[in-house]
Amino acid sequence: MKETILNLVEQGKYLDARKEIINQNVVDTALLFEEISQQKLLIVFRILPKDLAADVFTHMSSELQKYVIESITDEEAVSILDALFIDDAIDFLEEMPSNVVKRILRNTNEKTRAIINQFLNYPVDSAGSIMTIEYVDLKKEMTVKQAIQYIKKIGIDKETINTCYVINSNRILEGVISLRQLILSDESTIVKDIMDTDVISVNTHEDQEDAAYLFKKYDYYVIPVVDNEKRLVGIITVDDILDVIDKEATEDIHKMAAIQPSEKEYLRTSNWVLAKNRIPWLLILMISATLTGGIIERYEHALQSLMILTSFIPMIMDTGGNSGSQSSTLVIRGLALEELYPSDLLKVLWKELRVSAIVGITLSFVNFLRIYFLGKTDILVALTVSFTLFLTVILAKVVGGVLPMIAKKLKLDPAIMAGPLITTIIDAVALLIYFSTATWLLGI
Amino acid sequence: MKETILNLVEQGKYLDARKEIINQNVVDTALLFEEISQQKLLIVFRILPKDLAADVFTHMSSELQKYVIESITDEEAVSILDALFIDDAIDFLEEMPSNVVKRILRNTNEKTRAIINQFLNYPVDSAGSIMTIEYVDLKKEMTVKQAIQYIKKIGIDKETINTCYVINSNRILEGVISLRQLILSDESTIVKDIMDTDVISVNTHEDQEDAAYLFKKYDYYVIPVVDNEKRLVGIITVDDILDVIDKEATEDIHKMAAIQPSEKEYLRTSNWVLAKNRIPWLLILMISATLTGGIIERYEHALQSLMILTSFIPMIMDTGGNSGSQSSTLVIRGLALEELYPSDLLKVLWKELRVSAIVGITLSFVNFLRIYFLGKTDILVALTVSFTLFLTVILAKVVGGVLPMIAKKLKLDPAIMAGPLITTIIDAVALLIYFSTATWLLGI
Repeated sequence: MKETILNLVEQGKYLDARKEIINQNVVDTALLFEEISQQKLLIVFRILPKDLAADVFTHMSSELQKYVIESITDEEAVSILDALFIDDAIDFLEEMPSNVVKRILRNTNEKTRAIINQFLNYPVDSAGSIMTIEYVDLKKEMTVKQAIQYIKKIGIDKETINTCYVINSNRILEGVISLRQLILSDESTIVKDIMDTDVISVNTHEDQEDAAYLFKKYDYYVIPVVDNEKRLVGIITVDDILDVIDKEATEDIHKMAAIQPSEKEYLRTSNWVLAKNRIPWLLILMISATLTGGIIERYEHALQSLMILTSFIPMIMDTGGNSGSQSSTLVIRGLALEELYPSDLLKVLWKELRVSAIVGITLSFVNFLRIYFLGKTDILVALTVSFTLFLTVILAKVVGGVLPMIAKKLKLDPAIMAGPLITTIIDAVALLIYFSTATWLLGI
Repeated sequence: MKETILNLVEQGKYLDARKEIINQNVVDTALLFEEISQQKLLIVFRILPKDLAADVFTHMSSELQKYVIESITDEEAVSILDALFIDDAIDFLEEMPSNVVKRILRNTNEKTRAIINQFLNYPVDSAGSIMTIEYVDLKKEMTVKQAIQYIKKIGIDKETINTCYVINSNRILEGVISLRQLILSDESTIVKDIMDTDVISVNTHEDQEDAAYLFKKYDYYVIPVVDNEKRLVGIITVDDILDVIDKEATEDIHKMAAIQPSEKEYLRTSNWVLAKNRIPWLLILMISATLTGGIIERYEHALQSLMILTSFIPMIMDTGGNSGSQSSTLVIRGLALEELYPSDLLKVLWKELRVSAIVGITLSFVNFLRIYFLGKTDILVALTVSFTLFLTVILAKVVGGVLPMIAKKLKLDPAIMAGPLITTIIDAVALLIYFSTATWLLGI
């Protein structure tokens, strides 16, 4: 299919291409457009039915959207915008440079402009910023028959008609009813009598992550969005939540690797921005490592008298860092998925103490076997290293488990308390344990 | 609401509690049940309407499910199972110990048993294992009126009626039509003429992650599942995909922290299992660190003659590790979200080279300032450290970016090529660079 369309466009057979495009999925068409030369793309785009063109436009990359919008007339641009669902229009406008946004807003009618401006004012990542206003609102006094007729009349332009919301005369949200219930109910039933009054909604200013949590908890496909007066102002559909879930996970993963999160795809991000996102934490952590260096300097004489001790430093540091990362990762993810709450702090502490005891004993035992029997190291040195390892693992796991919990309690982002930061903290403590043990056991 | 119900149950006013429970969301009821003493819970559970009881059962924790199922009679257990959607029944059975599964299967009728056994045989994490068989299948010759009547008749027990699939006499999937289209179409239209024939489906044996990818790409709410002969056998609904997306992200996050992933919640996992999931990688990485120790041992004399060099080892190791983790994290996540493909290997290599040059210059410059001007270190030592840092950052970022790509090319899991492993590799290389530079610049 794809090859056919590309060939047809190549040969200038645009009307044949149009026929094929109408039959295929809009997402695939949008992907295909990325491969057509820009000149020809405009021709193809212009001969598509208006609604289809708008639909394809929604799924194009923002680079291509920008090219198209800058190449077409003002009237064409406005007609595309009018055919978009409001959430898609906002997504698109947010990616455009301000001159494009201005040009479009200048040309739209006042009502659309007001709506768009209102949306652009919702906080980033708020429920309001991802909602759409194309929903079905029923009056509670309607009969099922009236409701279905109303849906038939207005439904065509709504993002979903499967879930309908019931409002009173002040637009206050009072109930919810599914198209399924309407279809399966008797025609003369009053909507009020069969609607579900236990409606779970989000406020426009709530975080999109909280909305995502409700979708996951209640297995919803749509959630209504209300303003501070509980008036229905929009809906969020689950397809947008899929993106939210991915985005939030990506954000956490990036933070856990000491990167400032960015929403842009890796290959589409400029080298300068990538570098800028990575340097701050690397600098902070590099300078913090001065502390560790200072500890080594303090014990220089001890090290000099028994140089073999130096060679175990990387192993102790790495194992401590890895042990701590494991615990902090589990806890950070648990907090993100709301499987763990700040009030579980003591439970986590107690659990990590016991788990780390098992892990610590195992690792230090294996380590002792390896360096004493295989490495032929002096027994006191082997004991020093193994004992340090044992304490380091316990400490790393406890610190790794507890710090994200404390961060959450302090309303900080737990994801910062991940591998890199934990490693830097544990490095210093591990070396202190190491040298203290060596001084004590080896008398240096 | 919650407090009221708990109070009513506490006072033995079960029928009043029942009334309240019927009015509230089943998910909330399931959460509430976790707080009721087990004796009283059974009473409450038994007086609920059968369908509601099954619905609540679906949302209970597996511990509570196990308790309930072990405490009720065989008939009651079978009647709950019959009222569950097949995907929920399978989720439940997969969590139960084998004696419970056997007991239930022994008591169900032959047909249900056959279906359940078939489901339990689908590979873990396959599309088949998360699908449900409660879908609406229309015949393509039906009129819209007949289709709607058919849906009214059979729809009540279907997980979704919003999307209906059209099959031929051999049950081969031929099209899809939404309830919305049916409602908005003329009653005498033939389904075949308005159905969409461009149906995207998954095979029962495909990975659930691939299914999730289709949901995200096409913004679907439901996707049909077909067998090898393209016969419709089930559907996957988007609410199950939300869990898949979370689960896959969690799995990657755990692997990236060198933990064997587990599906169970942190606090519900036993200490032994948690330890078992963490020890293998810690052991592997600990033993790999021997290499780093060996390198230090080899250069013991050089170190002894200039002990100050030792104190920079942790900083160089940590910065190298962190730099590598950043790149590997970005690339692993990019691969997981299908923003990056194995064929982008050279693009990633080239990008990381340029980004790492920027990062490397910045870090080594700041480091030079710090240790030469603030730390009053000898200029040649400062140069050695800074030069090592520069090369290490570049190398770490290139290795960190490229290894996950290569893993993907080799059909290995890229998530393994994350921080911990990269750190261990970079540690060794960084030390080699360090000592070689020191030998060359300082003549030791």
